[in-house]
Order: sequence, then C-alpha cells, then structure tokens
Amino acid sequence: MFAPCLEALHRKKPMIHAISNYVTANDCANMLLACGASPIMADDPGESAEITALCQGLAVNIGTLHQHTVPAMIASGRAANAKGIPAVLDPVGAGASKLRTVTALQLLREVRFDVIRGNLSEIKTLALGSGATHGVDADPGDAVTGETLPAAVAFVKAFAARTGAVVAVTGNIDIVADGSTAYCIYNGHPMMGRVTGTGCQLTCLTAAFAAANPGHLREAAAAAVCAMGLCGELAHRRLGPLDGNASYRNYIIDAVYHLTPEQLEEGTRYEVR
Amino acid sequence: MFAPCLEALHRKKPMIHAISNYVTANDCANMLLACGASPIMADDPGESAEITALCQGLAVNIGTLHQHTVPAMIASGRAANAKGIPAVLDPVGAGASKLRTVTALQLLREVRFDVIRGNLSEIKTLALGSGATHGVDADPGDAVTGETLPAAVAFVKAFAARTGAVVAVTGNIDIVADGSTAYCIYNGHPMMGRVTGTGCQLTCLTAAFAAANPGHLREAAAAAVCAMGLCGELAHRRLGPLDGNASYRNYIIDAVYHLTPEQLEEGTRYEVR
Amino acid sequence: MFAPCLEALHRKKPMIHAISNYVTANDCANMLLACGASPIMADDPGESAEITALCQGLAVNIGTLHQHTVPAMIASGRAANAKGIPAVLDPVGAGASKLRTVTALQLLREVRFDVIRGNLSEIKTLALGSGATHGVDADPGDAVTGETLPAAVAFVKAFAARTGAVVAVTGNIDIVADGSTAYCIYNGHPMMGRVTGTGCQLTCLTAAFAAANPGHLREAAAAAVCAMGLCGELAHRRLGPLDGNASYRNYIIDAVYHLTPEQLEEGTRYEVR
Repeated sequence: MFAPCLEALHRKKPMIHAISNYVTANDCANMLLACGASPIMADDPGESAEITALCQGLAVNIGTLHQHTVPAMIASGRAANAKGIPAVLDPVGAGASKLRTVTALQLLREVRFDVIRGNLSEIKTLALGSGATHGVDADPGDAVTGETLPAAVAFVKAFAARTGAVVAVTGNIDIVADGSTAYCIYNGHPMMGRVTGTGCQLTCLTAAFAAANPGHLREAAAAAVCAMGLCGELAHRRLGPLDGNASYRNYIIDAVYHLTPEQLEEGTRYEVR
Repeated sequence: MFAPCLEALHRKKPMIHAISNYVTANDCANMLLACGASPIMADDPGESAEITALCQGLAVNIGTLHQHTVPAMIASGRAANAKGIPAVLDPVGAGASKLRTVTALQLLREVRFDVIRGNLSEIKTLALGSGATHGVDADPGDAVTGETLPAAVAFVKAFAARTGAVVAVTGNIDIVADGSTAYCIYNGHPMMGRVTGTGCQLTCLTAAFAAANPGHLREAAAAAVCAMGLCGELAHRRLGPLDGNASYRNYIIDAVYHLTPEQLEEGTRYEVR
Repeated sequence: MFAPCLEALHRKKPMIHAISNYVTANDCANMLLACGASPIMADDPGESAEITALCQGLAVNIGTLHQHTVPAMIASGRAANAKGIPAVLDPVGAGASKLRTVTALQLLREVRFDVIRGNLSEIKTLALGSGATHGVDADPGDAVTGETLPAAVAFVKAFAARTGAVVAVTGNIDIVADGSTAYCIYNGHPMMGRVTGTGCQLTCLTAAFAAANPGHLREAAAAAVCAMGLCGELAHRRLGPLDGNASYRNYIIDAVYHLTPEQLEEGTRYEVR
C-alpha cells in the first residue's frame, strides 16, 4: 500500500524547502538526499518565500526558534499555500516555552498546514492552547499504550478534523490520521530516542513523501512514518557491539538511502482504525 | 571514585539546556544523549530563561558568538542561579577577539558559573582580562608539560578560588580544580584535536555530570573530563586503517554511549595535587 | 604536480576563517581538520574582521544567507585583502533568489576574491547578473559534457580574466581556470551529490590549499578540486552493502584525513586546456 508512495518519491525527486534548526539541519538535509529528494535551507525573510516558490514541498521546524525567523516561516507557508504545494509543520517543543506555544499557534492561524507532525505533548499543546511538554520530548504521561490508544486516536482524528491537516503523532505507537481514518503504526525502535533529530528528519521525510504524493497526503504521511520506523529497525539490526547512538544515526540515514518500495511494503506494521 | 558520578548520571537522566554554537550543536546533543542526559537547545532571549528553568543543568558556549544571543546567555545563567542548578561556561576563543573576551568577562560578572571549562589560553584570558588564544585552540606556549604542571595547577587553583567555580583546563594534561584541590588527568588522545567540537561536547558532558551530582561538583567535573578522555582512547583503539577523524568523531560518542561506571573507574588515570 | 601543494598544506597547517552556513558548518570544520588545517568559525560583524586577521585564509559561503551576516562577510573579505591572504567565495544558490544573487554580486564588488568556487549555474549568475540556479544545485541544462566542455572552458576563463580570480566550477567535469589556463578535472563520483555540503567542504579545502600555497593559486585550487574528487572515489570504493550517503559522508572526510601527496599525484585525472 505504501510502495507506490516511495516509488513516486524516487521518481519525482522533489525539491524541499526546509526551515529547520541549527542542531539537526545537516541530518535533515542528508535524510532528504537519502530518500531521493533535494533539500534547500533558507530562513531569511528576504528570500524565504521566493525559495519556497521554487520547491515542491515545505517543512517548517521550530526546534531552535528565533523570533526574527518567524516572518520567514509565515511567508514561506503562505507561498506554499499559494502554489498549492504541501506544507508540513513540526512544532518542536510547543508547550515547553510560551514563545514556542504562541509561535506554533500563530503559524497554525496564518498558514494552512497540510501535515502536522509532533509528539503527543506538542500536539496536545496545539489543540488545547497550552501544554506541559518535557523539553523537546513528550511528557511521560503522554505515552501511548494499548490501553490509551483508542482515546489517543479519537483525539488525533478530532484535531485533524478541526485543522483540516493530516496529523502525525509519533511515539511508542505512531498515529497518522485525518478526520476520518487513522493509521496506528508499530514500526520503530526505542533507541531512536537516543539520536538527536530523528523527529526533525521524519518531518523532512514526510514533506518529501507529501510533495511526491500530493493527492494522497494521509497515505504519504503514513508511508513516511512507516519508512522512518522501519529504517530505525533495519539500522538497529546493523549495530555492532561498539556502535552507539552516533553510528546508529548514520545507519538510519543509510537505511533510508537503500530502502526499496518492496522493503517498505513488507516491513510496515500498522492497523487502520 | 568516579563510578558513582556516572551511576547517578545514568539514573537521573538530567535535562540539560545547552546554548551551544551552530558548528557543534548536533554533536553536543548526541553527546548528551549518549551519556543518558536529555538535551534542549534554545538561545532566543524570548524563551531562554524559561527553558533553563525546566532543566537540571545549563551549558553556555560562545563558539559562534552572536551579540544578540548574549542576553539569552545571561538570562539563562541567572535562571540557573535562581533555581540552584549547575551552570557551566565554555569561553570558546576568549582571547581571540575582543568581542569574545569582553563577552566572557561579562558573563562571569553577571552569572555565577559553577564550572568553567576551557583550554589554558582561554582561562588565562579570563584571569588576566586579555589573552593570545590561537583561534579556538590554546596558544602553543600554553601547553602543559610535566615541567610546567606545578605552576599551571597553582594558577588554576587560584582562579578557581577567585571565581568560586570549579575550573577545568583541558589540554595535553587536564587540570580540574577548586580553590584547594586539583585533579591532574592523563586520559585522552592527541587525535581528539583533529575532531571539531570535542571541547564543546566535553562542556555538555560536564554539565550533565554536574547536574546529576550537584553536591560534588569538583568530582563531577573531573569524572566528565576523565570520561571524555577515556572514550577518546577507547574510540582510538577501534579505528581501522581507513578510519579518519570523521569516523573517530562517531566512535567517541559511541564510546560514551557504552561507557560503564566500572570502565570509567578502571580506565581513569589521574593524580590529586 | 599537485603533491607539493598538499605537502605545503600538511607542513603549514594554516588557520582558516570560515563564514559558513549552519547546515554544513560541522562537516566544513572536520574537513579542514582532516586536511591538516585549523578552522575557526565566526560571523558576527563585531569580531569577524579581527578573526580573519588572525588567520592565513578565508572562506565565505552564503549557503544559509542571513542579511545581518553580510556586513561580517564584507568586513572579513576586506581584512583578508588588507592582510594579503587568500579569500575564497562560495556563492551557494546564487540565481535561486534575488537576495543571494544581489549579495553575491555585492561581495564581488566590495571584496577582491582570489578564488570563486561554485556550480556552473551559480557562476553564470555571477557573470550575467541573474540566473536560474536549481535550488542549490546546478540547472540540469548547465551540465558540462564532452561536447559543451570547450564553450564552458572559454566561459570560465573569460570570467576569471574579468574578475582576476581563479574560478573553480564543479560538476560532472570540473574546470579550474585563471584567465589563461584551465584544468579540466575528471575526478569525483556522482554519489557525492547525495551528500549535503560536499561543495561547501570543497570550498573550505580550497581555502586551505590556497592559504598554504599563496603564490600558486591556480594550482592550489586545482589540487583541492582533485583531492576532493579523488577522496570521493576512494570513499566510494570503501562502501559496504549497507552503507549509504551518511556513511559516505564520513568516509570522504576520512579519506582526506589519510590522503598523501603521492596518492594525490597518482590519482588525479585532468587535462590542461
């Protein structure tokens, strides 16, 4: 089911404008190159909209938020909306500071995001207007388990319906939903949490899948989440006894580089709710 | 003697606010994750104090100094002081430009740093008010040898006494001292100087050790310096014939990921003066 | 012919001031350390000229251009000119936005660059005053083939004559020329395009070669381009079946770390036109 999404990505090689953060920008760029897309990073208000207009997708990430970059994010978001290309929001750390919460909410008001990807604490913050995000990680109380999954799915669908976006909540179990249908995804490995920026990279990967599959955003986002999780599993199997989180980081990107549509099709583990 | 410090770090998993630089921020984040801590990077004056207040430790690094970030550094330093959590200063390149020297001195005046970590040229600059740092490396005339060690130890203790901070001077021989006692540490490998940001990473590691051992800052800082040096040695032994400084960089972080309290206890080489 | 250039670089270990971008700064720093140089990154107008004056070479890169950094670029360029040390320009994405085009042209007016390195679309933009760069990659119509090589060589020589700079155009076939002589270089591997920042890294490597060989800038720039391409080949041979672009990135830097003058001499493939 997701194989055609990856085939389209490999075939179309979309150019993605990423307004990223300085901690993970390099990994984001290499992740985009790994999946066959082409990255361009630009966050000065004097050029950001023009750069977006060259591209087939936009990813906006507030991971090291600077107030003077917010106008660039808005201008690029509007340029993406005007051109009709997918815009993806990663509200990193929304709930951890007022600035991040307020900025994420402002972005949601001024730009129509096609996909929103974050952890459950971040997404709850967007939905409720305030939150208790544990730094850049989800609050431990927000872990999704088998027991809390139905409520989480209902919450994600409702937020998707309200915003009109596909919402991708990643965690122990990932949930990708629009207002009507949710994919619950079981791929991934806990060690991914020991590599900085796997969420940021996934956001870029999601923008690439969405850019290549603009008519099927829910499937595209779910394919990206499955691909990232599966590559986390494949990379984990490759670890030698001395390999730690730095080697793991490289192996995850390497795995995306080699990922085939067939591998993705066979390796995904999800259910539809 | 340092094993309990690492045990506490693994157990407490402190969240560390790192105001880093854009060259080494990714490695700093992965180093913090490797040792069991959790990183958050934020350097906008509009949120930095609030982010610090969420954390158990703060690391401030002036490696790619921007004037508009200095208020964020001061606000975060004061928030750390107010909350009573360890604040660590890395005065990268103090002595190499007036801006860095003046900023480092300003930070020392406005914030009470619990640990200051730098090379000897940087620390001399702080102590004397001006310096001759060789870019971001120590001036060759500032190399610590067996012969110059006693004078260097006396200098570091005096500066520690004057500032009330634990001072960690890293180089060929590392010196970690408060006003009364110095650890002279012989771990490490010269090739670490061929990897960018090993100093920045050590500063973050020091903040993590300090955050997990707030009652024993001198031991915590010495444990961090020993751990970094030991992991430099372990990673060097792992190098294959084609591995250079890029692979070495990954292996050092990998070694921290796997470092056990027992390994640290057995592998440290130091004397107390 | 290029062996003495690398020998000089290994012997002199120049300090290079890199005004880079936040996507590739870490790789640029490790590339400089790999070749034996010493990097310092600084882009605040309050210190940039002072930092340049400490160094033996300057590399200016507009990869994530911020308007407030432009004065730092100009001040550093003038400091390099005043001191008589090589200044290298990498006009990343010139032609992709007005801001980048205008800034690159302004830099060319206000600073005398000794070497300009970019892809053909970027260099055409500088020559013609406007362009159609495909994001940060060359426009596909600008690919240099055997057929278009003579015209491309003539164009590069003419632009070099007009600017007084050595011009290094990298692509499928690389061209390094001053007004009279061009090296056409056949080293490299297409997979280098799947690693972010190989161009940025080459610009820094070029600054290092130029700083160590200030009397032979054309040879120095050609040696840097050959070295980067050759290391791309060596690193590609090292790839295992699971290695992708992330491991490749490390292996390229590793290969530069180990590159000997003899290897460079034997491995280069070029012709003089």
